[in-house]
Amino acid sequence: MPGFRYSPSAGGSGPARLREILGRASRPGVISFAIGMPAAELLPARQLAAAQQQVLPGNTAALQYGLPSVALKRQIVELMAERQVACGEDQVFLTSGAQQGMDLVARLFLGPGDTALMEDTVYDGIRLAAGRLTERLITVPTDTAAGIDVDAVASCLAAGAQPRLLYTIPNGHNPLGVTLSAARRQQLIALARRHELPVLEDDAYGALHYDGAPPPPLRALDPDWALYLGSFSKILAPSLRAGWLVVPEEMVSRLSPLKHGADLDTPSLSHHVVSAYLAAGHLAEHVARLRAEYRTRRDTMLACLAEHLPGELRWTRPGGGMFIWVELPPALDAADLLEEAIAGERVAFCPGAAFAVGESARARHGFRLCFATCTPEQIADGIHRLGRAVERALERVGVL
Amino acid sequence: MPGFRYSPSAGGSGPARLREILGRASRPGVISFAIGMPAAELLPARQLAAAQQQVLPGNTAALQYGLPSVALKRQIVELMAERQVACGEDQVFLTSGAQQGMDLVARLFLGPGDTALMEDTVYDGIRLAAGRLTERLITVPTDTAAGIDVDAVASCLAAGAQPRLLYTIPNGHNPLGVTLSAARRQQLIALARRHELPVLEDDAYGALHYDGAPPPPLRALDPDWALYLGSFSKILAPSLRAGWLVVPEEMVSRLSPLKHGADLDTPSLSHHVVSAYLAAGHLAEHVARLRAEYRTRRDTMLACLAEHLPGELRWTRPGGGMFIWVELPPALDAADLLEEAIAGERVAFCPGAAFAVGESARARHGFRLCFATCTPEQIADGIHRLGRAVERALERVGVL
Repeated sequence: MPGFRYSPSAGGSGPARLREILGRASRPGVISFAIGMPAAELLPARQLAAAQQQVLPGNTAALQYGLPSVALKRQIVELMAERQVACGEDQVFLTSGAQQGMDLVARLFLGPGDTALMEDTVYDGIRLAAGRLTERLITVPTDTAAGIDVDAVASCLAAGAQPRLLYTIPNGHNPLGVTLSAARRQQLIALARRHELPVLEDDAYGALHYDGAPPPPLRALDPDWALYLGSFSKILAPSLRAGWLVVPEEMVSRLSPLKHGADLDTPSLSHHVVSAYLAAGHLAEHVARLRAEYRTRRDTMLACLAEHLPGELRWTRPGGGMFIWVELPPALDAADLLEEAIAGERVAFCPGAAFAVGESARARHGFRLCFATCTPEQIADGIHRLGRAVERALERVGVL
Repeated sequence: MPGFRYSPSAGGSGPARLREILGRASRPGVISFAIGMPAAELLPARQLAAAQQQVLPGNTAALQYGLPSVALKRQIVELMAERQVACGEDQVFLTSGAQQGMDLVARLFLGPGDTALMEDTVYDGIRLAAGRLTERLITVPTDTAAGIDVDAVASCLAAGAQPRLLYTIPNGHNPLGVTLSAARRQQLIALARRHELPVLEDDAYGALHYDGAPPPPLRALDPDWALYLGSFSKILAPSLRAGWLVVPEEMVSRLSPLKHGADLDTPSLSHHVVSAYLAAGHLAEHVARLRAEYRTRRDTMLACLAEHLPGELRWTRPGGGMFIWVELPPALDAADLLEEAIAGERVAFCPGAAFAVGESARARHGFRLCFATCTPEQIADGIHRLGRAVERALERVGVL
């Protein structure tokens, strides 16, 4: 076996224990709320198949190298207008899913020694993307009622930190479920302007709201410092790998060679399929259906949590997205509970450690439930099982 | 306008003059040999459309997040066996085109201060991928008759250079057209073993050979230090973004979190479509047809070059791939000639500067012609035009 000398900045092979546990969570018979997957039965497979047939075999240009789809960019401009974000095609940059947008923006702003600012409990993709470029990831807490702690951001900046980039998820936060309040959006943008701090807003869940639309995106408040990241993964289908950035036009010419180096600056066949789907006018009705179905699932999960979880636990009531965050008493470790829950009750969730940037007590004693993937019947069954697993764990540590 | 503070390692907005010229090359009426595009009329659009219908709407799992397609990995194992490379599914890592494989392997081995070794005139994607990670790109020349100068590699290593990675294109070199000789493959692998140097062999053109199959890939000679990079872009369709690595199994577990950070570790819908296409058994016949057609185009271009180009020019006679490399007399700059050729004769090529790693006289006075994209009739017309443009340029500088 050769002894390869890997670059330290490439990281290791990932947190083995967590991956191993989550591997077991995907076994047949386990009800899993662990992964942020859309409901398979709600994917618009038939309409996407029709969109594929619109593209092939007729449009061979869709198979070729070429420039990013102008048609899709125009459609995204229209979608953004519905969200009160005014932009032109030249400010839209197509990516291979939102994760690539994160990676490219991180590469644009971060190098060795640079500081990135993010929440201490947040989607792990930003930690993976930014953490390879710099070791300096500084964090602020998140209030589960109103979103990222903007006062903590202000203190951090006042204390002299000079982050090159701030990342946050304003709507349907992953994993905390919270939506950023309108007041905090204004405060955050004021800070971004004053400190010339680019804010990357990850809006993968913005269209999935259940109690009325969230406040307008940060980019609606500021077209300079707010960089918008969108995705069709949660509202159409993840494997299309269709995401986009809305950024100042000048930035597009810098993202383009970065994407060339990452996976070539070409439209995928998928982007043409997404464009054909949108041109057929299906999206609004489909998203309305997703909202209705996911609202039911959220409400079912909340009701079941109230019925089956002991009073020692707390959880969020998300107005959007796909996730509920559950907080355990400090005596219980979420990763331990997950092992017991899979082995004893065949139910799974994602322990908070997966989302921790650095040390985080919240992450250690909290976990994420995805309410989108399972049917209401599975949710009722699974949360019942979860309640039994939690009760046994609390007895074990002497809390019950 | 905000004054963004970009990371210096993100690079600039690319070589503006070249991009601008190549933009003009794509205008209607210009016969372009500039871009490495497969022939549009040879793309198997009808069979790929049928493969899409095999996948959707029936297989909704193909729309979801999930593990990389095991079916496609198995098919790649079979394709590799035909090339005399023995490997298992666990050594196959699916990527979003060969470029992503390059980017991920570069990230795995290169960090600030590390050295990467490559040819001085080579596909620019590796420069883009590696050059963002380290400034230390060292180069060796390439012999247009036998491939990368392995003696120069040996001298470089003997002199104490400690590259972390060597990149080369053994078959149908881009842009030089050369195929690495069997003897040099043995020598290169012996060096890789002795110096524990990972060699990334980019085999995007390996299946496209016109005078008999090339020698077996480096990975057939050494399953440890040779890292194999394959792609369906040139033999099926670029926009499918389907590439793969064959690497030691232990390396896969390190590539996986890197890909997660880059664009999430998910199969694309496209990978399922490629798998359905392969399962239908179309590939061998399609590649045979490509070989026959591209051989005709290569021969047409070579005959036209001999007929229309002045005796002061030299060019390669490629046994594979898609490119012929033309060398100008030192008095002529290829980028200047391109401007004249587009303006005066409406014919375009890709100037060598696009492929230069550092300073390279060869790159300055050479250019690449792609013989795959245009029909034989267009090739005859275009090379005739090119001959006229070259003659005028030689007159201008006083050589003719």
